Amino acid sequence: LNEDRLIAELRARLRGVDGTRLALGIGDDAAAWQPSRSNRSVITTDALVENVHFRRDLMPAQAIGHRALAANLSDIAAMGARPVLATIALGIPPDVAAEWVADCYDGIAALATSARCAIAGGDITRAAELVFAITVVGEVRPSNLKTRAGARPGDVIAVTGPLGASRAGLRIALERPDLRAGGAACREALRAFSMPVPRLRDGRWLGGSRHVRAMMDTSDGLSTDLARLCAASGVGARIDAIPIAPAAADVAALTGDDAEAWALDGGEDFELLAAIERRAFPHLAVRFRAHTGRDLIAVGEIVAGEGVRRADGSVVPARGWDHLGA
Amino acid sequence: LNEDRLIAELRARLRGVDGTRLALGIGDDAAAWQPSRSNRSVITTDALVENVHFRRDLMPAQAIGHRALAANLSDIAAMGARPVLATIALGIPPDVAAEWVADCYDGIAALATSARCAIAGGDITRAAELVFAITVVGEVRPSNLKTRAGARPGDVIAVTGPLGASRAGLRIALERPDLRAGGAACREALRAFSMPVPRLRDGRWLGGSRHVRAMMDTSDGLSTDLARLCAASGVGARIDAIPIAPAAADVAALTGDDAEAWALDGGEDFELLAAIERRAFPHLAVRFRAHTGRDLIAVGEIVAGEGVRRADGSVVPARGWDHLGA
Repeated sequence: LNEDRLIAELRARLRGVDGTRLALGIGDDAAAWQPSRSNRSVITTDALVENVHFRRDLMPAQAIGHRALAANLSDIAAMGARPVLATIALGIPPDVAAEWVADCYDGIAALATSARCAIAGGDITRAAELVFAITVVGEVRPSNLKTRAGARPGDVIAVTGPLGASRAGLRIALERPDLRAGGAACREALRAFSMPVPRLRDGRWLGGSRHVRAMMDTSDGLSTDLARLCAASGVGARIDAIPIAPAAADVAALTGDDAEAWALDGGEDFELLAAIERRAFPHLAVRFRAHTGRDLIAVGEIVAGEGVRRADGSVVPARGWDHLGA
Repeated sequence: LNEDRLIAELRARLRGVDGTRLALGIGDDAAAWQPSRSNRSVITTDALVENVHFRRDLMPAQAIGHRALAANLSDIAAMGARPVLATIALGIPPDVAAEWVADCYDGIAALATSARCAIAGGDITRAAELVFAITVVGEVRPSNLKTRAGARPGDVIAVTGPLGASRAGLRIALERPDLRAGGAACREALRAFSMPVPRLRDGRWLGGSRHVRAMMDTSDGLSTDLARLCAASGVGARIDAIPIAPAAADVAALTGDDAEAWALDGGEDFELLAAIERRAFPHLAVRFRAHTGRDLIAVGEIVAGEGVRRADGSVVPARGWDHLGA
């Protein structure tokens, strides 16, 4: 592998990605763009490490590239913003061929194209293990910017889709190869796991509503992420109903697992989690359905105090993803 | 190590860094800022991997943090821009203590403060080896933005300082521990290696001159970087004189090495490399010295054709840093 030659190949793979927002693209010391005058800029970085966040034997290179960018786009969606550009830092171990890296970039390029996110550049280096660090810059009207803070007691806690399908797909990929060619639920779970869809359209739409008081994504699991939203807002939460993805329920029935635990703690569903003014919620949910074709699902209520509890008062521990955990 | 607790500790270490440009800082799904209305934004990403780019046994944690940010700031300087904010993705192996990471952030914080670069957030994860991927966003007046393209035959090739001191410091750190407590030249070389100074002020000043036609930094070595500038500009170059840092010459005299090779191929000096209109060069160099107190050093001339040669016509091979090399 030679750096300049590999970069030339990767630039070729990115050729279909719209770079019109860039004043200067890949190949210089930095990339340049003209930010929109009336908007705030937002920025997020996610690192993905082989054998921590993904395994090469569980999915094709394209899916690994897709997921790496999707995790960042989900953060942009959670701010109510739209993506503008991404940079990609990539550490490549000696046993990874240039062809694998190029296929991975095909996955990145396909998602970047559909998300209208330019690829502005990055850095490629030798490493002992495969590592991605992707940074995405986005833009949002100042009045539409949503954060984790702002939830108030009485707000409806809602998610943009049912949860647990990605965790169900991980279960199949890791431990039940016999189900890989299983029925529709297994295929859907594997798809949710390997090709998650960042909720960019949902995020922009929810960002446009002044009734949405706080928003984040559920990448680390509802239990962990709701606790973070509560901590940022200085409130607590009561979970009344955990929306389980039908594919997760079906797979759990096959494997004997607890689908509710997957939905609560599984993570990587990349649905958005929002605190919404109670009186506005019913109408907002109807308009959300008309706009996206999917349901805005109420899962509980923001309450005074701190911590996340179930309706029966039992504490919900944050069992989701700790990036430094075992 | 617990992610939320470590992030709280690192936020504390960054407390002195000016974050006034940020509308929203560390701790949400993304950070937000208001870009300057009259400027272009620029973005650069650099990955640093343990045992590829640095070794923990060769320098303190603060210096490793400093260098990681310095490499990115040097790229911002090379565009004629000023830094606005940085994000930090960090992979931490199990044998690295939270205290080491915190010390490393002290080094990042000190340089960020002096460069007026906010730390906007990032991502921390478990990894098999220590990895940094830092992204810096900067701003520049559109007319001041410099790229690698634009050099024309006849231009003077100049650097913002003599070269090779960082490579001399690496030699001592790696192979001559007996010289670590050596004389002034050894200390200066070690300092150039462990605490390089990104030429932000020089870059902004040179960016303001319309006589500077192309610019980049010399992070991968003059031979490699000049070849890249030439390729981007569609020209060749003739090197007439290689400016050797006095510390590099003195250390090479002690170790029996070739100081000129260090200056030509060593890299990590983070000086800026510019192609400057010939008739403007003498006056520009005088003004540069008045502004910075240092010399703008002519190293050769841009010529028609391609490739980099010496005055005697011999080819200068690009022996600098290939990030995927052995």
